[in-house]
Amino acid sequence: MQIDKIGILGLGYVGLPLAISFGKSIHCIGYDIDKIRINNLKKGIDKNQEFTKKIIKNSLKLKITGRLLDLNVCKYLIVTAPTPINLNKEPDLSFIKKAAIDISKIIKKDMVIILESTVYPGVTEDFFGKIITQKSGLIVNKDFFLGYSPERINPGDKVHTLERVTKVISGSNNTATKKIYNLYSKIIKKVHISKNIKTAEAAKVIENIQRDVNIALVNEYYQLFDKLKLNPHDVLKTASTKWNFLNFKPGLVGGHCIGVDPYYLTYLAKTKGYNPKLILAGREINDSMHIYIIKSLIKKINLSNKGFSKIKILILGATFKENCSDLRNSGSIKFFNELKKYNNNLHIYDPVADQRLLKKITKIGVVNNLKANYYNLIILLVPHKSFKKDKKKINKSLKLDGQYYDFNKSTKLDKIRFS
Amino acid sequence: MQIDKIGILGLGYVGLPLAISFGKSIHCIGYDIDKIRINNLKKGIDKNQEFTKKIIKNSLKLKITGRLLDLNVCKYLIVTAPTPINLNKEPDLSFIKKAAIDISKIIKKDMVIILESTVYPGVTEDFFGKIITQKSGLIVNKDFFLGYSPERINPGDKVHTLERVTKVISGSNNTATKKIYNLYSKIIKKVHISKNIKTAEAAKVIENIQRDVNIALVNEYYQLFDKLKLNPHDVLKTASTKWNFLNFKPGLVGGHCIGVDPYYLTYLAKTKGYNPKLILAGREINDSMHIYIIKSLIKKINLSNKGFSKIKILILGATFKENCSDLRNSGSIKFFNELKKYNNNLHIYDPVADQRLLKKITKIGVVNNLKANYYNLIILLVPHKSFKKDKKKINKSLKLDGQYYDFNKSTKLDKIRFS
Repeated sequence: MQIDKIGILGLGYVGLPLAISFGKSIHCIGYDIDKIRINNLKKGIDKNQEFTKKIIKNSLKLKITGRLLDLNVCKYLIVTAPTPINLNKEPDLSFIKKAAIDISKIIKKDMVIILESTVYPGVTEDFFGKIITQKSGLIVNKDFFLGYSPERINPGDKVHTLERVTKVISGSNNTATKKIYNLYSKIIKKVHISKNIKTAEAAKVIENIQRDVNIALVNEYYQLFDKLKLNPHDVLKTASTKWNFLNFKPGLVGGHCIGVDPYYLTYLAKTKGYNPKLILAGREINDSMHIYIIKSLIKKINLSNKGFSKIKILILGATFKENCSDLRNSGSIKFFNELKKYNNNLHIYDPVADQRLLKKITKIGVVNNLKANYYNLIILLVPHKSFKKDKKKINKSLKLDGQYYDFNKSTKLDKIRFS
Repeated sequence: MQIDKIGILGLGYVGLPLAISFGKSIHCIGYDIDKIRINNLKKGIDKNQEFTKKIIKNSLKLKITGRLLDLNVCKYLIVTAPTPINLNKEPDLSFIKKAAIDISKIIKKDMVIILESTVYPGVTEDFFGKIITQKSGLIVNKDFFLGYSPERINPGDKVHTLERVTKVISGSNNTATKKIYNLYSKIIKKVHISKNIKTAEAAKVIENIQRDVNIALVNEYYQLFDKLKLNPHDVLKTASTKWNFLNFKPGLVGGHCIGVDPYYLTYLAKTKGYNPKLILAGREINDSMHIYIIKSLIKKINLSNKGFSKIKILILGATFKENCSDLRNSGSIKFFNELKKYNNNLHIYDPVADQRLLKKITKIGVVNNLKANYYNLIILLVPHKSFKKDKKKINKSLKLDGQYYDFNKSTKLDKIRFS
């Protein structure tokens, strides 16, 4: 089957790889509402540093646009709208809604509209599709087709790229499924057909919940073994000599997936009268891990509240994971903001992060240079590889009687410097 | 270093492989309090069917005994006492205590005493070792040595055998650690030295907790997706097309490890003032999964209580896992006992299980033959391979309007027979 004219709505971490990959061989229009992003991409600049100018420019059939109406020539639309949570930790479907309204303005007969965002089972058909129908008057499977194909993008991962990872697809009926299968088969080797849209939606959301719960479990170990005066990292290292032990590490779960997606499923579960105890217990641990560490540090450093408020503290690493510039939902920033309540001389240092954005988020405390013999306490949170280069400077910045804490190595405060 | 005279206390699933393996090249004395077990093993019979007569007989330097005093020539003692839980779901250390008292009767200067049982951090030194000292007057690291080396035996697994799996060891001091390292290195390729005994104890107990929590998570999915009218097996199959998705399956967690070990750590945690929410949430789900399934089945079959009590029901599979004869802590037996409260015509069929023991446990309801055209409902719980051979007989035993439920395939009652 000949595929032509694909529109991609949203050119972030998920949309851009799709647009570039399709654009190598098929006429593809990439659309985003962010004018700065559009201007950058037109110049071949991806501020997320996932793609070089050469790769973007080599996608010869890709056209970047900020005009929604440019998409009305498309036969396929792929929607990569963000699905965050609101302050009550409930799904915020406003971006999906906006996309549906936008699409209803450009929809044409027989268009195939595919959602890639992480959602709970039912959103594609009963929310997204329904809005399109309400606004356009067109009917699913009669006038247009719906599909769901969850993104599995892992930012910074050069091995599990879009083309190499199995793509799950699903359609509103058999015709839709076939069309969507053919579409993705043009760029992806292994396409897996899910039984129906809701099964694919459920499969996507549980992938990230599994990681969240497993990290929560090792965070629970961290807290318990800290209490028992055992180093949790030693215990995990020993356990991981077993052939089937799963090597998860304690962490400040952040980002826009693992810490967010579980709330999509728990929200739906609650509306259906089911209380998902385990998933919520996991969320509770991960959402408060930064508070646990701060309280335990204050205890260990053994100063009065007033004394603690005055010492000079440096946090190393601000992004949501190591070797990645993304600051969204960063656990380190949550840690920084919480620790600020107890301390008046708090600095944060992260050469990997976008400095302008970092300053905007933290307001004060961002440093670019480390003063020598300055800090009483250095806390390593996000172990960027690049810190190795800064090793001397970091160690010099710690006072001679200063203390060092590496969350990823120990539960103890140490005299030993960064190594 | 020359190793000689090893005593193994307890010749069950853990002790027997050790005794057989050491006995191939080193004088080894295997001891058990179960006289029937001793008589059988002397004849080369392992009722657990893990070892053939030939293998047992070929362990030429192994001597089997029921006399404790025979162990007093040993330089090393390895203790494989069971560590179950009591009715309050708290650790039952009575077997460990008995072993310590027994050992104090035969202990000699410089003996190395190693515990292999799953325990919580502290049991080896602060409970087991302490009792030996109290009873014998001998002091650890002065008069004798202590060690902990957790068993990683996986019954029925022919790949991950004792000799092939990395063995974690730990000792009460450096001398003990060296001796224990040398001991196990005689039969095991990869020996991992743990930092100390408590770290090794903690590592062992979290290995099984990880499995328990992950199964609890998919059990939670099972319950939620059942409510959402999605087949959880379809969802899991779809998710498992992702490269890092962990392929756990819903299950009636039973056996003497996964369903028991978490309570060892949670008990210790609570005595130290820490409430392990996630581990306990996992236990709660797994411990009540059989009740969930029964209630959901009764709802689906849509009969009055009286009507349900009268239908003829058959359960397939009674052991704690498939293709294994072990009935201890079987989830299927728990299911059977619970379902009996609602139904008066309940049968159970399991050609793999020890029939005598099965009859003893269930009292009534065990069948060896399946009557044709007899059952209104057949429930497949434990999918033994051998059921495939019985396929025709099983399908014939279901009435024409009977219903079939396969826990491992669907949440639905089905007209489709066993296939």
